[in-house]
Amino acid sequence: MENFVFYNPVKIIFGKGEIARVAKEIPVNSKVMVLYGRGSIKKNFVYDAVKDALKHHDWLEFGGIEPNPKYETLMRAVDIIQKENVDFLLAAGGGSVIDGTKFVAAASKYEGEDSWDMLAKAEKVKAALPLGVVLTIPATGSEMNSTAVISRNSTKEKLPLSHPRLFPQFSVLDPEVVYSLPEKQVQNGIVDAYVHVLEQYLTYPVQAEVQDRWAEGVLKALMDTGPKILQDQKNYNNAANLMWEATMALNGILRCGVPEDWSTHMIGHEITALHGIDHAETLAMVLPGVMQEMREEKSEKLLQYAGRVMNVRDDIPHDKRIDQVIEKTEHFFKSMGMQIRLSDHGINMSTIDEIEKRFRQRPGFDALGEHENMNPSRVRNILESRL
Amino acid sequence: MENFVFYNPVKIIFGKGEIARVAKEIPVNSKVMVLYGRGSIKKNFVYDAVKDALKHHDWLEFGGIEPNPKYETLMRAVDIIQKENVDFLLAAGGGSVIDGTKFVAAASKYEGEDSWDMLAKAEKVKAALPLGVVLTIPATGSEMNSTAVISRNSTKEKLPLSHPRLFPQFSVLDPEVVYSLPEKQVQNGIVDAYVHVLEQYLTYPVQAEVQDRWAEGVLKALMDTGPKILQDQKNYNNAANLMWEATMALNGILRCGVPEDWSTHMIGHEITALHGIDHAETLAMVLPGVMQEMREEKSEKLLQYAGRVMNVRDDIPHDKRIDQVIEKTEHFFKSMGMQIRLSDHGINMSTIDEIEKRFRQRPGFDALGEHENMNPSRVRNILESRL
Repeated sequence: MENFVFYNPVKIIFGKGEIARVAKEIPVNSKVMVLYGRGSIKKNFVYDAVKDALKHHDWLEFGGIEPNPKYETLMRAVDIIQKENVDFLLAAGGGSVIDGTKFVAAASKYEGEDSWDMLAKAEKVKAALPLGVVLTIPATGSEMNSTAVISRNSTKEKLPLSHPRLFPQFSVLDPEVVYSLPEKQVQNGIVDAYVHVLEQYLTYPVQAEVQDRWAEGVLKALMDTGPKILQDQKNYNNAANLMWEATMALNGILRCGVPEDWSTHMIGHEITALHGIDHAETLAMVLPGVMQEMREEKSEKLLQYAGRVMNVRDDIPHDKRIDQVIEKTEHFFKSMGMQIRLSDHGINMSTIDEIEKRFRQRPGFDALGEHENMNPSRVRNILESRL
Repeated sequence: MENFVFYNPVKIIFGKGEIARVAKEIPVNSKVMVLYGRGSIKKNFVYDAVKDALKHHDWLEFGGIEPNPKYETLMRAVDIIQKENVDFLLAAGGGSVIDGTKFVAAASKYEGEDSWDMLAKAEKVKAALPLGVVLTIPATGSEMNSTAVISRNSTKEKLPLSHPRLFPQFSVLDPEVVYSLPEKQVQNGIVDAYVHVLEQYLTYPVQAEVQDRWAEGVLKALMDTGPKILQDQKNYNNAANLMWEATMALNGILRCGVPEDWSTHMIGHEITALHGIDHAETLAMVLPGVMQEMREEKSEKLLQYAGRVMNVRDDIPHDKRIDQVIEKTEHFFKSMGMQIRLSDHGINMSTIDEIEKRFRQRPGFDALGEHENMNPSRVRNILESRL
């Protein structure tokens, strides 16, 4: 097992009816900005519940944060915050709104010239406004971590930002928000969470028993919840399970002391940046290619995953077991409504050329994966195998 | 799934060589008290490592905290703290030292007449000194929770104290401390952690998929680590696994949204209070009796535990499967060096009479268990079945 630091101070308030509790979590003398997306919270019960909870607070709202939240949009929120002296942010939304709010929290306190440098130049986050969350889509885990991924229109870039100052102070997880989600968002949530776990698991073994068991536990739980919730999206326990699975998939506990490989995400982000395709769809397209390309390096964990999670028989040769576990993973993604080929989305060689070129130019992107041996040529192989 | 709040801000610093990092975690202008037990930290490397880490701090030490830490001893530390204006506590020890330090943190700031009232009268902890931990024995999980269990000589009581103010600010977990532990403490640690998980698991199902999988994961990991570490206590990964298993067993994550049953602990505490027997030994004695007495109420989870953790065949009748899983649990405890009968420790009917009497007198102890239907007569049955 490797040395590690684990720290996650997010207070989780979980269960139906709990949105009312935001009132107690935000200092009553705060000037609050409620940030949200394209208005789905006004169609379900969330906006009204937040409004009711904040009836003794001074607050204003900022709507319109888009999927793959845009720097350009978020900077408009920053302007208002600075003009209105907002001092507490409440994100009411899914991963995009929460990520966007984290960026806004840091950008509002940024003292340099261009707050995009926190992402493009990996500048440290020196200060940030406090933030809370009312989660509306289980998927990204952003409600219980300190990372955000932000896109910039003008440069077609999508880059991560991470700092302990960006942990939400609290997150309210009310599973009833799942009832009215479009089916596609539920499917995306399952696949997103599933791949988050695999990026922290499919590397090489370091005898980290609990970490492996817990990763396998979330994968099994997601494979159990997925079909059930697509059958019955208004079942409370299905919704609650999906919500907790997605949060536990990326709150930092699974990565403790183990190697990680975020190459599927790095490649997927480029596909979203270039084509605007849903994050989960890109992961479902890319991951089987990564498993295939890295099957030697990842063989031990692929076999463990095959046996413990996918029930692949262990009396057949290793190579066949790895073939089967890749197929079974693809099959699971398809059963969750994913299109798992680049060509399904009309993506062709020119995109692969562009991604290879970007990876050759961007510092650190020439050596992805847990062994830092996934170079741009191997990224090309992965993508070509997914055409 | 039930509604819940999860909050655990303890920063975990895990791995060999990490004790040096306490220097960065404690404000340099603090007056520090290092609390420890009966001197084992002076026989291994821990005392020297702490001393080295604190070379730029002003600090003093308080040794002699005993197993099942005593109110009488701890109040001597409180006196010194108040005289010397100590403002940061560093526990260097196992569960007893950490629990004792938590009590000292609260008692040093207590403004009433007798700080024991925080336990005996469940008074709220209104203030506490900040504390950090250097863990020396993996077992109780106290390094990552906000609970302490304290004994009082004069009344032969052993009672819990719990409050968010008692979370350590940080805990350093260096697995190399395990190398020089007496084998008995390693055995106790495994059984203690195992029963912690079962108290949060062996109740009734609420369709909490991740919580069940994670509880089962820690149980499986402990059953894997136990025999290995008794074979080779100086293997780093064995030590690291035991340490992380014990911490994860009781940091609050497994109890999220599920019912709990701490009756084995409540009964075990009485046996320790009356006879001074190791905490883990009492759990190993009592738990099989609880499983037997509550086999109807707990049948669904007993069967799930039988199938998923203990590999009991599922083609035999339910009753036989429950018999088998109780036997297999006893067998595991015995393989970890436990004596699992009261008579093994010379305990007889007079102790059972006394415990039944205490449970009849103490508020809340007439209705233990997840269904609050374990009354003092059933506690008597449990204990008689363990003679």
